[in-house]
Amino acid sequence: MRGVAIVGIGCTKFGEHWNKGIKELAVEAGIKAIEDCKISGKDIQLIIGGNMSGGMFAGQEHISALLADQLGLNPTAAIRTEAACASSAVALRVGYLAIMSGLYDIVAVGGVEKMTDVYGSQAITTLAGAMDQETEAYFGLTFPGAYALIANRHMYEYGTTREQLAMVAVKNHKNAIHNPIAQYRKAITVSDVLESPLVADPLRILDCSPITDGAAIVILTSADIAKKYTDTPIYIKASAQASDTLSIYDRKDITTLSATVKAARDAYAQAKIKPKDIDVAEVHDCFTINEIIAYEDLGFCKKGEGGKLIQMGETEIGGRIPVNTSGGLKAKGHPVGATGVAQIIELVEQLRGEAGKRQVKNCEWGLAHNVGGSGATVVVHILSNNR
Amino acid sequence: MRGVAIVGIGCTKFGEHWNKGIKELAVEAGIKAIEDCKISGKDIQLIIGGNMSGGMFAGQEHISALLADQLGLNPTAAIRTEAACASSAVALRVGYLAIMSGLYDIVAVGGVEKMTDVYGSQAITTLAGAMDQETEAYFGLTFPGAYALIANRHMYEYGTTREQLAMVAVKNHKNAIHNPIAQYRKAITVSDVLESPLVADPLRILDCSPITDGAAIVILTSADIAKKYTDTPIYIKASAQASDTLSIYDRKDITTLSATVKAARDAYAQAKIKPKDIDVAEVHDCFTINEIIAYEDLGFCKKGEGGKLIQMGETEIGGRIPVNTSGGLKAKGHPVGATGVAQIIELVEQLRGEAGKRQVKNCEWGLAHNVGGSGATVVVHILSNNR
Repeated sequence: MRGVAIVGIGCTKFGEHWNKGIKELAVEAGIKAIEDCKISGKDIQLIIGGNMSGGMFAGQEHISALLADQLGLNPTAAIRTEAACASSAVALRVGYLAIMSGLYDIVAVGGVEKMTDVYGSQAITTLAGAMDQETEAYFGLTFPGAYALIANRHMYEYGTTREQLAMVAVKNHKNAIHNPIAQYRKAITVSDVLESPLVADPLRILDCSPITDGAAIVILTSADIAKKYTDTPIYIKASAQASDTLSIYDRKDITTLSATVKAARDAYAQAKIKPKDIDVAEVHDCFTINEIIAYEDLGFCKKGEGGKLIQMGETEIGGRIPVNTSGGLKAKGHPVGATGVAQIIELVEQLRGEAGKRQVKNCEWGLAHNVGGSGATVVVHILSNNR
Repeated sequence: MRGVAIVGIGCTKFGEHWNKGIKELAVEAGIKAIEDCKISGKDIQLIIGGNMSGGMFAGQEHISALLADQLGLNPTAAIRTEAACASSAVALRVGYLAIMSGLYDIVAVGGVEKMTDVYGSQAITTLAGAMDQETEAYFGLTFPGAYALIANRHMYEYGTTREQLAMVAVKNHKNAIHNPIAQYRKAITVSDVLESPLVADPLRILDCSPITDGAAIVILTSADIAKKYTDTPIYIKASAQASDTLSIYDRKDITTLSATVKAARDAYAQAKIKPKDIDVAEVHDCFTINEIIAYEDLGFCKKGEGGKLIQMGETEIGGRIPVNTSGGLKAKGHPVGATGVAQIIELVEQLRGEAGKRQVKNCEWGLAHNVGGSGATVVVHILSNNR
């Protein structure tokens, strides 16, 4: 079976871009990705773009055709994918399938979200589109609220502490200092988190990922031809996805994301490795509790021991399994439709050995974990610098 | 290379479903599709769902995970695709690629749109999300306006008449009488069209496809195993897509959709046939002018002669190349995210010989033409009952 490689990467700075819209962000990322490898725009045979809610954030749908147009790539076919905050991880999966089909050799995959052109509660209303409207959002549940319920239950079941949640944010801010694209490049302390304004008990504002503008694009080729376009191809060794209920009331256990467990199991089987083989991981820390749950669901520690894992420093750069070396969604920023591919870009930089002061030593295997909503969609990719 | 077959089809009635939301519509279509073939829900390995604007129409994104959830298919992976009114034709393309990859054997592909829960100008604003907001919609252009510009230019360049436009609506209404799922099952006359309220000169309300709720789902398998699940598999012989500018001001010629020309050329090459081989076609008659332009761009007649083709009766059932036997978007209805797959369902019924009073005799080749926006995305599929 043919393989798939990532040969080029491009990402905008994440943050508030008051002077750039969807088009400018996507074009900037696209040009960087093309310049990062020996490919020109006309070589690209298919474009897959993730975007969660261009309609509600900016009145703009038909996002991928817009990207093809703005990048000067017409008549190249363009498809938008959406799976809430996992929209661009599913774009990567579709790009992967397109190359695996044998019908395409070179595919551009990306994500974009323009979130800051909103007022009042528009951002929270839009993001609630990832929930089941009829059973959650209409009754006033928000995403911080949903993850607060999850956090409380995790604390009750496993003794996870408020301080352990804070340590996730502290670590991710520390990592972001060395990431030039990150939204918040400044250190914070556990007491900063504990003293920050309460959003939904127990989650405080420094437990929450921010509202962010940004775009991230990668260029895929079939593995056979990758070395024509770059000296450092990174291979997609697994692409797995699973679904769960949109509503958390409908789940047997809210301290785990069952779709993470399923997607991770499938991904490890595809890559023929075990969790202990992963050298670096980007996980979906939309709220601090979700990074702790991801540790457990991805098999980096036993169920209930995620809090201890962060406390022991095991997920720091230099620890046993460094997580969110980019700064994560918390500090790098979370332009929802771009996040999945941005995670991939961090792994590519790590696996190429180009991550500068964030570099994890002797990286061979990287894992990306992207979550839509409160876990109704989970996508896990495993990358390697070794074909 | 492996092939892809359609083994099951399911569609709701199209129209205003005041008592059904996105979930109920999708479940109804999904159950019908499963009951139409010897497949049970647990056999489905992947779900691809097209939806244009669940966010703006209903506050609901994360549409495909919602479908997986409501259909009881968790943890099966689910991906939403969007390309404006071509959202479910691109879903079909992604499902096709997934099976061609060899990684999936059985995939459910569908589309859903709930459009009637809107007030005031919300529908027209939402649909304008398919345009470039910054260069068209913000300045007051609407889709009827865009197609009116196109119609005026076509009439000016080629002498296409107001009556010829009306004949498209008359034919499609006539066909819809025999389609049990159609929104408008009643005959209209040329004078009905000419006397109907003006929307955007020269287009009148009976030139415009309606606002519609509906869902359409098909089950795909690899061609090798299709006969296990149905006695009448229909094969996807071509799947092609092309892009063009979102803004019509940016085009050299607005009397043609260049993306249709490109996608059609690619599709005919994949299927190794010529336009004259097509026995039945479903084309994107969002406005009457677009059916006439489609005749020309798909090669059913020479450029500029689309008006004559409808006038000569060549596209009637019984004519040389019957078009929109379902009633088309005009009379069957146009739930934008569901339309692409609904076109496919009509072709499957024709190619199976199950189209009742709409049946075209001796059908072997069917073509579906689905347009996003004013032609920024065009998808062409060619189906056959002959592997």
